[in-house]
Amino acid sequence: MSLESIERVTIVGTGLLGGSLGLALRAGGFGGEIVGVGRRQETLDAAIGAGCMDRGTLDLEAGIEGAGLVVLATPVSAILRHLEQMGGKLGAEVVVTDVGSTKRTIVQTAERVMKFPGKFVGSHPMAGGEMHGPSAAVVDLFVGKPVVLTPTEQTDAEALKLVQEMWAGLGMIVRKIDCESHDLTVARISHLPHAIAVLLVLLAEKGESLSVASTGFAGVTRVAAGDPEIWADIFLDNRDGVLGSLDEFGAMIEGFRKTIEAGDRAGLIKTLEGAKKIRNEWVTGFHPKRTPE
Amino acid sequence: MSLESIERVTIVGTGLLGGSLGLALRAGGFGGEIVGVGRRQETLDAAIGAGCMDRGTLDLEAGIEGAGLVVLATPVSAILRHLEQMGGKLGAEVVVTDVGSTKRTIVQTAERVMKFPGKFVGSHPMAGGEMHGPSAAVVDLFVGKPVVLTPTEQTDAEALKLVQEMWAGLGMIVRKIDCESHDLTVARISHLPHAIAVLLVLLAEKGESLSVASTGFAGVTRVAAGDPEIWADIFLDNRDGVLGSLDEFGAMIEGFRKTIEAGDRAGLIKTLEGAKKIRNEWVTGFHPKRTPE
Repeated sequence: MSLESIERVTIVGTGLLGGSLGLALRAGGFGGEIVGVGRRQETLDAAIGAGCMDRGTLDLEAGIEGAGLVVLATPVSAILRHLEQMGGKLGAEVVVTDVGSTKRTIVQTAERVMKFPGKFVGSHPMAGGEMHGPSAAVVDLFVGKPVVLTPTEQTDAEALKLVQEMWAGLGMIVRKIDCESHDLTVARISHLPHAIAVLLVLLAEKGESLSVASTGFAGVTRVAAGDPEIWADIFLDNRDGVLGSLDEFGAMIEGFRKTIEAGDRAGLIKTLEGAKKIRNEWVTGFHPKRTPE
Repeated sequence: MSLESIERVTIVGTGLLGGSLGLALRAGGFGGEIVGVGRRQETLDAAIGAGCMDRGTLDLEAGIEGAGLVVLATPVSAILRHLEQMGGKLGAEVVVTDVGSTKRTIVQTAERVMKFPGKFVGSHPMAGGEMHGPSAAVVDLFVGKPVVLTPTEQTDAEALKLVQEMWAGLGMIVRKIDCESHDLTVARISHLPHAIAVLLVLLAEKGESLSVASTGFAGVTRVAAGDPEIWADIFLDNRDGVLGSLDEFGAMIEGFRKTIEAGDRAGLIKTLEGAKKIRNEWVTGFHPKRTPE
């Protein structure tokens, strides 16, 4: 099974991720039909107007009719709902994937409710931003970014190949990790940093702090402008990963505090140099084509 | 006293801040001589070559000769050293300011060692970046950013007016705060966020986390690429402010943890929406002309 043989891709969710996926598939030469499923006619119309989809519907069941590939591009709680709603009705010829920022619950739900559980492949493209809706969609959102796939023992090899081909075709760097490791890993580099950014903004509201904040603060807290509904879903669904990384981080803060209390300049410089080196090496390897760095 | 009447400005430290200050003063029409004092001939030559200074010297005492205004633009520990070295020798006609990220120790030291303590005005321009050296200097580094001045009861009104005129002339938004409040305030919006960014990078090194990190992580941790020596100085000099804000932040993390543990979606959304609103309003008012946002 390859993307070329697919006549219809249905994208459920027509926001930044779903919209950008439609644009990128078309730009990448996908010749079949791209159908969007949305919650509101206005957003669907905007997505179609922006060239993200060929046509759209508000009805999930109508939208997935005749699709060879269904991509769930909504917040986590809606992905779970969509899986429950359609899982039992999809034939063996339909591959399903998603873009959810958590994976364990989604993969477990998919394998529980789908008639052909092997046809579900969990995906998490590490791309996004603080802008919402199809008007924010861009054709190169995925280029150069990592995407994590979380196949299980049940996953069909052909389905995995198709989903991998799709993301790689959009310029993404494919990694395969099991769901549990994904959720802990992503807690460390995305969910925890997001929580931290939110709390730093709330702390900065104290006193006159915000009136002297500048570009450094803007960078550290940028993600705090993200969608509250999407992130509430993520924090609650990845409860274990988030709490685990909060514990890890709490221990690190305690160590940092002790270094300062001890006036240990050499220890402090070692910590700061270590982080600078790690980050510089990572940035050199990462080099996303769309990042401001 | 106004900047127009000053025949010579001496900038001690010819890195990003000192170099950019020289460029900006010249571009802003300052007609006097700009003298740079550096630690290494190579950096001095680079700063002069980039048009940041008219001439330079490795000798502090020679550099400040005949200056009407001296700006100390080195890391905090060097600022303290320079004050000790020159404070007793400066006449009443010389105004001194600095760019240090902490203020209490610097202002206390200045007022203790200077023959004319009223002539020192503590400054903290909230501008900078992860790049170092005069080659990173840019003429508009200060435009649209806040600068905090920390006058005391001893500060001479004319000296304060001159320093304020200089920063405002470079397009900075001037705030006046006492040293203690400055150090706590800036701990919240700069020193703590910096520490957090450093620790997030070190946490991300665990497991495969860095291999899936993307643009969100890049933004949150950008400041962790800052100079370790400069930041070690800041953390140690502002020990009280940093430890205080770590305590405040620890309590906020604990509250966040409880919200997640309780599965309190409404509480979580309230927190996320609060931060989003505060940050959006701040960004709208801040709008720095050089920021990537």
